[in-house]
Amino acid sequence: MPQYNPPLRDMQFVLHEVFRVVDALKVCPPHAEVDADTINAVLEEGGKFAAEVTFPLNITGDAEGCRLDKSTHEVTTPTGFKAAYEQYVAGGWPALSCDPAYGGQGLPFVVNQCFYEMLNSANQAWTMYPGLSHGAYECLHAHGTEEQKRLYLPKLVSGEWTGTMCLTEPHCGTDLGLLRTKAEPQPDGTYKLTGQKIFISAGEHDMASNIVHLVLARLPDAPAGTKGISLFVVPKYKVNPDGSLGERNAIYCGGLEHKMGIHGNATCQMILDGAVGTLVGQPNKGLQAMFVMMNAARLGVGNQSVGLTEVAFQNALAYAKDRLQMRSLSGPKAKDKPADPIIVHPDVRRMLLTAKAYAEGGRALLIYCALLLDHELHHPDEQVRKDSAELLALLTPIAKAFLTDNGFVAVNECLQVFGGHGYIKEWGMEQFVRDARINMIYEGTNTVQSLDLLGRKVLANNGATLKKFGKLVQALIEEEGVNEKMSEFINPLAQLAEQMTKFTTEIGFKALQNPDEAGAAAVPYLRVAGHLVFAYFFARMASAALKAIAAGSTDPFYQGKLQTARFYFARLFPETATLMRQARAGVANLMQTDAALGVEGI
Amino acid sequence: MPQYNPPLRDMQFVLHEVFRVVDALKVCPPHAEVDADTINAVLEEGGKFAAEVTFPLNITGDAEGCRLDKSTHEVTTPTGFKAAYEQYVAGGWPALSCDPAYGGQGLPFVVNQCFYEMLNSANQAWTMYPGLSHGAYECLHAHGTEEQKRLYLPKLVSGEWTGTMCLTEPHCGTDLGLLRTKAEPQPDGTYKLTGQKIFISAGEHDMASNIVHLVLARLPDAPAGTKGISLFVVPKYKVNPDGSLGERNAIYCGGLEHKMGIHGNATCQMILDGAVGTLVGQPNKGLQAMFVMMNAARLGVGNQSVGLTEVAFQNALAYAKDRLQMRSLSGPKAKDKPADPIIVHPDVRRMLLTAKAYAEGGRALLIYCALLLDHELHHPDEQVRKDSAELLALLTPIAKAFLTDNGFVAVNECLQVFGGHGYIKEWGMEQFVRDARINMIYEGTNTVQSLDLLGRKVLANNGATLKKFGKLVQALIEEEGVNEKMSEFINPLAQLAEQMTKFTTEIGFKALQNPDEAGAAAVPYLRVAGHLVFAYFFARMASAALKAIAAGSTDPFYQGKLQTARFYFARLFPETATLMRQARAGVANLMQTDAALGVEGI
Repeated sequence: MPQYNPPLRDMQFVLHEVFRVVDALKVCPPHAEVDADTINAVLEEGGKFAAEVTFPLNITGDAEGCRLDKSTHEVTTPTGFKAAYEQYVAGGWPALSCDPAYGGQGLPFVVNQCFYEMLNSANQAWTMYPGLSHGAYECLHAHGTEEQKRLYLPKLVSGEWTGTMCLTEPHCGTDLGLLRTKAEPQPDGTYKLTGQKIFISAGEHDMASNIVHLVLARLPDAPAGTKGISLFVVPKYKVNPDGSLGERNAIYCGGLEHKMGIHGNATCQMILDGAVGTLVGQPNKGLQAMFVMMNAARLGVGNQSVGLTEVAFQNALAYAKDRLQMRSLSGPKAKDKPADPIIVHPDVRRMLLTAKAYAEGGRALLIYCALLLDHELHHPDEQVRKDSAELLALLTPIAKAFLTDNGFVAVNECLQVFGGHGYIKEWGMEQFVRDARINMIYEGTNTVQSLDLLGRKVLANNGATLKKFGKLVQALIEEEGVNEKMSEFINPLAQLAEQMTKFTTEIGFKALQNPDEAGAAAVPYLRVAGHLVFAYFFARMASAALKAIAAGSTDPFYQGKLQTARFYFARLFPETATLMRQARAGVANLMQTDAALGVEGI
Repeated sequence: MPQYNPPLRDMQFVLHEVFRVVDALKVCPPHAEVDADTINAVLEEGGKFAAEVTFPLNITGDAEGCRLDKSTHEVTTPTGFKAAYEQYVAGGWPALSCDPAYGGQGLPFVVNQCFYEMLNSANQAWTMYPGLSHGAYECLHAHGTEEQKRLYLPKLVSGEWTGTMCLTEPHCGTDLGLLRTKAEPQPDGTYKLTGQKIFISAGEHDMASNIVHLVLARLPDAPAGTKGISLFVVPKYKVNPDGSLGERNAIYCGGLEHKMGIHGNATCQMILDGAVGTLVGQPNKGLQAMFVMMNAARLGVGNQSVGLTEVAFQNALAYAKDRLQMRSLSGPKAKDKPADPIIVHPDVRRMLLTAKAYAEGGRALLIYCALLLDHELHHPDEQVRKDSAELLALLTPIAKAFLTDNGFVAVNECLQVFGGHGYIKEWGMEQFVRDARINMIYEGTNTVQSLDLLGRKVLANNGATLKKFGKLVQALIEEEGVNEKMSEFINPLAQLAEQMTKFTTEIGFKALQNPDEAGAAAVPYLRVAGHLVFAYFFARMASAALKAIAAGSTDPFYQGKLQTARFYFARLFPETATLMRQARAGVANLMQTDAALGVEGI
């Protein structure tokens, strides 16, 4: 059976020593009083919940899955899921970073970010039930009417109700412009929605008394395409004006998908058969409103993969220290044993360190993103709020795609450390791989993320936001440029930062001639940008570790951070050499392939 | 539901236009009469068997899995598996490339190779039942006594009986030196074997009347480690001198593993409780005898991944032409439809072409390996036999590791083409991913393959065998160096071939100082070698295509081959840039990481 130990020390290092979040948040009025002890205490408790309550349900939930009763349309989640959720609600966990005006605890997002990493390590399928509620909460908080906020937010914050996002239909996933679900205005100001949605995570379950669906649909006179999409809130049970539950609404689960992984989460086909909802935001502006939710969800998906990477790493590391097999090439190490533990083999270490570096780089990026979100919402300086929002928009597709691609590589390396045992269910490693696989797909495939990054976030503003990130990099280079001990980390970072400008300009220029050039370069471009970001954070982590050592610490923890950073620059960062060649290879090798692919006349 | 069309034309291209196997085999007495029509006709029939008989059982076999009756120790395979096997036996398929002296059809291995690629595409789990028999056949054919050959080979050739290889034990997989199963000599010259084996594919099943286990065990006075391992043949039912079945032997299935994939294949824990066996080969030389089997199995595993890549590619291609989603970035292509088929998007083509290139490069390498095996066994010139054997030994770890790593990348890209639907079982893509995952592990993990390549096959003879392959490359470069149309393929090949010598020498030199340097470089080294091999075969395929075009063919098939080769050199081959940096990064970034990994005193 797998094990999980919340990586509290690693989180504290990033929070307090690398980003000094308490200082960074002090200027934000709602967080002026938050101190490190509070953050650490919350995370310690949160880690216990993850490790003790939801982690033990991970393998059993996978084996059992969800069941739909076709006569009642009710879904039963795996044994223990409901009880764990009740404990989660009783502990006040849903409210952690929510608005105190609706019953939230008002803690900064950095705290919720770290808490969710641990939940994702423990049980991705379970975590998706409360996880989806956060998106619904954010969306209604930003775009709901006062009445919608009054009716829904307190229950989402308390966790009594959960939320979903109903976007996809059988014929449209990426291309929401094609969606067909209809919303008919009613005399009382409500709407009746009719249509079919698929792939609705947590769309139906037995864990909460009501489910708040946020549904994209078309008004009768809506223009075609994405400009004719509106957003509605459609509860499973109608809500009376006093907040009590009314009659069952005509939105129900018509089927459950049989999936590769995340079996414990109910992936529902949802039927809307004249379901009553109310409009969220402006008519035909539903996608904008939904994007609040999708951006949060994209960071959340990156976090799922970081969580899985961490837990897979911990288990592979334990196995590598325990499993005796062969002798070290440089002579026996455990002479009293019949063979050496496999951690003596360089390639086993490569696999382990790949996972460790991807977990730690990802954690730093996501905590940084959460800090940007806290600043975007609460920083007193408008320019900082604006800059934070822009930088977060730039980093979001990187956090989604880079971290989930890395995560899949990492959990597969961890499985590989187990040899044949990694392929056997009881060790738990193969489930991490199956669960991690969805993260590269949902909330916008990683290709879509790369087009978002290159097209909307970089080229559309001529690289202005990228330059803002470049300034942070430059500041670090200038600050650390004179520090000889940092040169091994700063030099490759500086070199890539320099190349990045030229690289981006080149692609932008080609894309002007032929937009398909952007499509041909986007995926490797995103990974290059991901490495720029990781190189920056690994340099910052190394800098924090060196400072602690310079201050006299002999804790091997800091040496470990330096070693991980060195590994990253030696073994993972060089991927940029290939990626830049791929991106520069241009469009012809992809698009002048009709004969190879048997494509006629498209 | 997925589809499968045997890639007969692609196979014929490699067999007849690239390698001209009929000419190449004419010199071998047993194959002097084999003509292209015979080969093509056999493969056409073989393709029908795969597509019509075993392919329809792939998804159902995965869902149903195998069942063990603990009281009888009998295993029931999924519905239809037994009937399909009966059809396979009735068709004479097991005998295809077997020795006519034992009832075989005596066709060259190149034919069996192509046939098995199709079986693997159709149903990897099913194919492992007959697949394992080939290893047992080869091993007994090479090392068995006359009596063992007489008793076992005809039944393995006819397919009445199947075979297994029983190596792994709970505490030893890679490190067979640790194995504990005991063999006690009996007065009648037989041995009684006692011990436990795990991960025995096809170890028990209901498809054949007997199962011939080849078991590694220790004699009472055997030296410790790998020098004290002997090989035994242990049938499920004892075999009477007249070949009829005797009583049940004390080797039985104690449990079935629950695995990530290949559910249709019974992965057995085997208990030997005084099972009676006879010695194969010399006492304490069991590993050498078993290596005949393992080398064949390693090529077979590479072939499994090529098969999965091909079938995943076919399905992703069909989906990409059918699925409408978004418009081309360069303007609508299917103007009469609500959106363009996703094959208009450059990154979708990148994913498809990755799979196509990996399938075609892998097919070429494996057919070439099979041709080497045919030459090793039957070429009249001793030097050719010796060279073929050496070259095959060099290419075997590449075929196993490079092709299975590529295969996993490829099937994942194909799943990704389906977006969310790729994650849903009914489309079949996620099964290809789960099945493909084992191929990187069994028959020696890919790390073990890389150590075998770099240590035993390259450095141990100072690169002599590698130079033999280099001569083939050099001959092609000289032959095509004056052909301007070939320069786009020849130039990168020539460049890598040149780098390869220096690269190898460098690593060899470092490994002399510190053997762990070999372990630190081996995995990226193997992939560089894999690209050298692929670059060579893609250049040869391009050359064959250009020749057909020069001869007047306007068949787009040949343009397709050129386009695929161009894609390979533009998008996949550049991985060498990163791999060489990784290999050159040396051992320190891996081994000076005790603090990062919390390793004390190892």
